[in-house]
Amino acid sequence: MGITEAPGGGDPPESRRIAATRLEEFVHDILCAAGLQSGHAAVAGRLMVAADARGADGHGVFRLPQYVRRIESGGINVRPDIRVVQDHPAAALLDGDNGMGHVVMSRAADLAIGKARAAGLAWVGVRGSNHAGPAALYAAMALEHDMIGIYLAIGNANHMAPWGGTDALLSTNPIAIAVPARQHPPVILDMATTAVAYGRVKRTIARGEAIPAGWLIDRTGHPLTDPGKVGEGTLLPAGGYKGYGLALMFGLLAGTLNGAAFGRSVVDFNSDFASPTNTGHAIMAVDVSCFADVASFKAHVDAACEEITSSRPIEGGGPVRIPGERSAATLARSLRDGVLVSADVIGELNRLAASYRARQL
Amino acid sequence: MGITEAPGGGDPPESRRIAATRLEEFVHDILCAAGLQSGHAAVAGRLMVAADARGADGHGVFRLPQYVRRIESGGINVRPDIRVVQDHPAAALLDGDNGMGHVVMSRAADLAIGKARAAGLAWVGVRGSNHAGPAALYAAMALEHDMIGIYLAIGNANHMAPWGGTDALLSTNPIAIAVPARQHPPVILDMATTAVAYGRVKRTIARGEAIPAGWLIDRTGHPLTDPGKVGEGTLLPAGGYKGYGLALMFGLLAGTLNGAAFGRSVVDFNSDFASPTNTGHAIMAVDVSCFADVASFKAHVDAACEEITSSRPIEGGGPVRIPGERSAATLARSLRDGVLVSADVIGELNRLAASYRARQL
Repeated sequence: MGITEAPGGGDPPESRRIAATRLEEFVHDILCAAGLQSGHAAVAGRLMVAADARGADGHGVFRLPQYVRRIESGGINVRPDIRVVQDHPAAALLDGDNGMGHVVMSRAADLAIGKARAAGLAWVGVRGSNHAGPAALYAAMALEHDMIGIYLAIGNANHMAPWGGTDALLSTNPIAIAVPARQHPPVILDMATTAVAYGRVKRTIARGEAIPAGWLIDRTGHPLTDPGKVGEGTLLPAGGYKGYGLALMFGLLAGTLNGAAFGRSVVDFNSDFASPTNTGHAIMAVDVSCFADVASFKAHVDAACEEITSSRPIEGGGPVRIPGERSAATLARSLRDGVLVSADVIGELNRLAASYRARQL
Repeated sequence: MGITEAPGGGDPPESRRIAATRLEEFVHDILCAAGLQSGHAAVAGRLMVAADARGADGHGVFRLPQYVRRIESGGINVRPDIRVVQDHPAAALLDGDNGMGHVVMSRAADLAIGKARAAGLAWVGVRGSNHAGPAALYAAMALEHDMIGIYLAIGNANHMAPWGGTDALLSTNPIAIAVPARQHPPVILDMATTAVAYGRVKRTIARGEAIPAGWLIDRTGHPLTDPGKVGEGTLLPAGGYKGYGLALMFGLLAGTLNGAAFGRSVVDFNSDFASPTNTGHAIMAVDVSCFADVASFKAHVDAACEEITSSRPIEGGGPVRIPGERSAATLARSLRDGVLVSADVIGELNRLAASYRARQL
């Protein structure tokens, strides 16, 4: 593994910044080598790199080895027949035929945006899909069409118990909402309904630290802070029963409504690489012009953001932030200086490239 | 004030159970006496009583004196021209012309349901409305049409600061989602995006108790627990920055998109009874049959609920619950034995009735 570029200012040591196009090409080549069609590999590559470029590095190229393992194990259909199985003016149901999640969800978002242009808004439900990366990517696709995007998904591993329970029946079931602005970056909320993502728990354990109270509970409902006992605990929902309620509702809307997996039928994609996950999503596009003059709406969003960012922070605190600000800044830096990839991820990716005799990063 | 019926089993002392029709008639008569049209008074009466019947007593007949005071102060338009100002196959914008919120929102929900029947789903934005009671009422209107209802609203007083800030720029901006089931009661989530409702803070202070940490913060970001200093604090969002993010997004979607109040333009309806509140809402109806066979979907919702309610509770805990179960049980009891109204609310209502020479409860 050769680290040729020096890390940029403020970047973690041993990390590298790689041009987005180079990284996309790398992912494309590996996915093709694993068996994906070139067009699908290009879509997946572009979206995985877009995740890293926005700072969502837990859902970007870091996932490539896992996706490849799933493709190699027959857990992804590399020649899917992605098709609309129900079609109405403002609603559709898409069956992904167990194709790559990024490809299926791109198709769903395009369909929702096209329908919303005619009907004012549209909701496309998806089943037979797979893990598709960060929620924000799909909600944000509506923005360039002067639409608001709303995305719901079923997570691909159950780590949360219902409020008051101890059985892990729920996943992080996230929501993303993207609203266009004028001068201000688009307002983009992307949140799991758990108190924290499971990846954060794993990273805390890897650093040998105790788990903060409020993340996990044990079977008695008490905080689980001993890293050695994580297997006995479940993630807490964000905001107590409210996060539980949202996770349940998003599960019914993105899963049950579409005939996708929810509850005990969710396949843990960290341990099972062969069974179809039957992942469910829902994507909605709302045409701003059906409610307001677009330019005026964007100006009002700017004003709402300005009102918040110019408000008083808590004493000794930093500026008050708007969801999406930080990822917009990260994206701008990524476009200028390349996408930040950590040394260990580069190592993993280059080992994968070597196994396929592909070009190293 | 004459308490004639004995409280039912388990009811708080001094409370009374009153037949829903009698209570609706009472509210209707008072609202008519205050100047509302009979048809509008009937709609508002029915929905206010429906709130109490489901146990949402903080948003039911308890609010009547406040509504009447607003009507008397000219803060509600008693002859509104409620009209559709933008109309698309699956989207519409309704201007409530400062009419009673319940009346405006009923119209909006009917419009969304009608449009969803043709288009598969519909989203109706509302401006120029007023406080309309509990969010669940409007989301639940879709249920009898085998639709899913989703409702967002801007609260009528700002008590929450943006995450990391201290200026109360946000309200409790709630969401309600209602999903039909077969045997199980419909799954209905109704939640504020604040950690607790402000009413709960007020009731805690009234009982002379300290405020639990996690409800309010002071200007330094530390928990505010001294009941005497509540005016210096702001409500915390549910789940930290996640609740903040949701409150902001719901504000943009239910307020800014519709040309309704959001942020500093929100009128505090507890202190200002004359200025139009320009309250914003958004209601969505999603036709289940556009995605799934309705009977089969409802059976799957039942199965999802059963999976959760039969799961293991935390040791020593009660059964694991589904959102909407408790209000369904309260509603059944209310229909059988009458709607529970506390003695102090009955006292307030009867004082109001006396001032209008209307019949006492």
